[in-house]
Amino acid sequence: MNKIDKLFRKEIEDIPPYISGKPIEEVQRALGLKRVIKLASNENPLGPSPKAVAAIKKNLKNINRYPDAAVWRLKAKIAKTINVNIDNIICGNGSDEVIILAMKAFVNKADGVIIAKPTFLIYQMAARAAEADIKLIPLTKDLKYDLKAMKKAITDKTRMIFIANPDNPAGTYVTKKELEEFLEDLPNDIIVYLDEAYFEFANHSFKDYPNGMDYLDKANLIVTRSFSKIYGLAGLRAGYGVTSKRIVSYLDKFREPFNVNLLAQAAACAALDDKEFVKKTLKTVEKGKRFLYDSFDRMGLKYVKTATNFMMVDVETDCAEIFERLIRRGVIVRDMKAWGFGNFIRVTVGTHEENAIFLDALKKVLTRKFQS
Amino acid sequence: MNKIDKLFRKEIEDIPPYISGKPIEEVQRALGLKRVIKLASNENPLGPSPKAVAAIKKNLKNINRYPDAAVWRLKAKIAKTINVNIDNIICGNGSDEVIILAMKAFVNKADGVIIAKPTFLIYQMAARAAEADIKLIPLTKDLKYDLKAMKKAITDKTRMIFIANPDNPAGTYVTKKELEEFLEDLPNDIIVYLDEAYFEFANHSFKDYPNGMDYLDKANLIVTRSFSKIYGLAGLRAGYGVTSKRIVSYLDKFREPFNVNLLAQAAACAALDDKEFVKKTLKTVEKGKRFLYDSFDRMGLKYVKTATNFMMVDVETDCAEIFERLIRRGVIVRDMKAWGFGNFIRVTVGTHEENAIFLDALKKVLTRKFQS
Repeated sequence: MNKIDKLFRKEIEDIPPYISGKPIEEVQRALGLKRVIKLASNENPLGPSPKAVAAIKKNLKNINRYPDAAVWRLKAKIAKTINVNIDNIICGNGSDEVIILAMKAFVNKADGVIIAKPTFLIYQMAARAAEADIKLIPLTKDLKYDLKAMKKAITDKTRMIFIANPDNPAGTYVTKKELEEFLEDLPNDIIVYLDEAYFEFANHSFKDYPNGMDYLDKANLIVTRSFSKIYGLAGLRAGYGVTSKRIVSYLDKFREPFNVNLLAQAAACAALDDKEFVKKTLKTVEKGKRFLYDSFDRMGLKYVKTATNFMMVDVETDCAEIFERLIRRGVIVRDMKAWGFGNFIRVTVGTHEENAIFLDALKKVLTRKFQS
Repeated sequence: MNKIDKLFRKEIEDIPPYISGKPIEEVQRALGLKRVIKLASNENPLGPSPKAVAAIKKNLKNINRYPDAAVWRLKAKIAKTINVNIDNIICGNGSDEVIILAMKAFVNKADGVIIAKPTFLIYQMAARAAEADIKLIPLTKDLKYDLKAMKKAITDKTRMIFIANPDNPAGTYVTKKELEEFLEDLPNDIIVYLDEAYFEFANHSFKDYPNGMDYLDKANLIVTRSFSKIYGLAGLRAGYGVTSKRIVSYLDKFREPFNVNLLAQAAACAALDDKEFVKKTLKTVEKGKRFLYDSFDRMGLKYVKTATNFMMVDVETDCAEIFERLIRRGVIVRDMKAWGFGNFIRVTVGTHEENAIFLDALKKVLTRKFQS
């Protein structure tokens, strides 16, 4: 049996595993805690869209049936909502899947891929699985995408460039002007992957935040959005990409026919109509952001201003230790070590109650640190 | 923008799209029919497992949370149910996803892959996407896997061999003796992919049907099973593979972290406990099979005896025409043209009422054919 190790594609061996936020249940079980709050995965603190939940209940009797392989109803609904043609849409088992499909369709071994450093980890994992030649371009000092440097890094071999706007984990965003300058005279044999998983939050707060859909004809652009965040459907896995009809047809070649499950399709459709839930979520996040900013200011902690529902905070000490201390108090956040920020945690904006619990716990664990 | 076509991986251009069963809603809409029955996708006619539905309801409030990336509870439950170690299990967004993961992990461009002809279409699609060198080995005259010919086709380049047991669409199965002879002295640098999506049906009916789990140490075996069929959860997308710990670790490198959605994990866990539903499904299918066999015999139609919940029927005329005529009467089956059987349809065993409606419609459309 030992020969099998030789079969495994060598180049892939050292792909690091994705690190996900610890599930609430697991922490409860492991630490024997009753109350655990999770501010680790940028989930919607208000729960799922009620309209989505109602749609799921209505469809429960049908889950013995395969999902619609064409994702027809959901694509039609998205098309109408964001005013694009249905042929320009591809749906994924989360928008993460669209990253993988794009990589499979366009990137061969040794092709060039440009990625910011640090940014959303899946880009690099997907590029490594494709055995691409990866160029990592550091964020600027204020943790923004350095689009000028990314453009300069383009060579004849470059096939794909990833832009998370806003960025995760930094929470910063690329402005209209910056994006337009970047797209201007870009070589037309490059795919620009514009990840707008947190679009609604940024769009709500910043006038100079660009809407990727306005630039579809300016480049070989794939713009992706998610039902995991503003619509509160992370558990169901639904996201979509918008691009040219031709690129959709290429991505579709690699899509597994039943990639988006039946309940996700029904729930996402209904969620798009749930204007009230979106409004309530935006209000909660906006209020929560201000509360956290003010509290960090009072505590004398530095943080990165965010265009999303999460933010990075400088805890001025080993973040893995702070992460551990917080978890023992029933608060799950993300330590930023894997992203190269040894003193930062990333915290999702929760409900007011959750934010208060987090701040209370943070004060206690930082004080203890200062005392020891 | 036109240069993008050159970027697209040429080798992939001619992968044919997967053909899925037509959704009930679509046929209702297109033909203005009220009553439409679907016997096209080998789904469970009794609906989903009631225990699974109850588990989904319980988890609806949590779907704003990401699924457990480790799929811990479901894997633990599977491990206990089929008596393997948790480290030997990988879960997928349907067992189809395990096919893709195996292909990515072990098959490089130009590596050899051996597939029966015809069989489940996804094997060939996945192998073509991997740019493998595919050898197609025809089924025997009685539409069984020809394992002897498949073994003979092995060369130094062969990396993977697919065996659907029972087969889809033929419905036939490979016996214990045949499988054992095939695995005997197989080169140890080949992955044998044993697809047991219809395991429970075959295991219930035939004593000489082999349980793949009994052969895990006899080869580099990946055995997959599904929650889509016997448990009635096709819409949710959940399946799993069982193999060596080492192979699991390789497959895991390519798995997207949240591939199995939260409701699928909860529902599949609960379904494994739903012995009553499994029993009822097996009884319904067994009774339905006999009813269909008897009716075809009386009608003088030939069919392939099946180890599954579906069967191929020789309609002695162009199957695409029969398919169209049946659909106009509100009965969706599958025409077998894409599999190379121009005169066959494949029909899923439904409830007694559905089977009767199908037979009634079939008699009418065949009579009309004979009259014209």
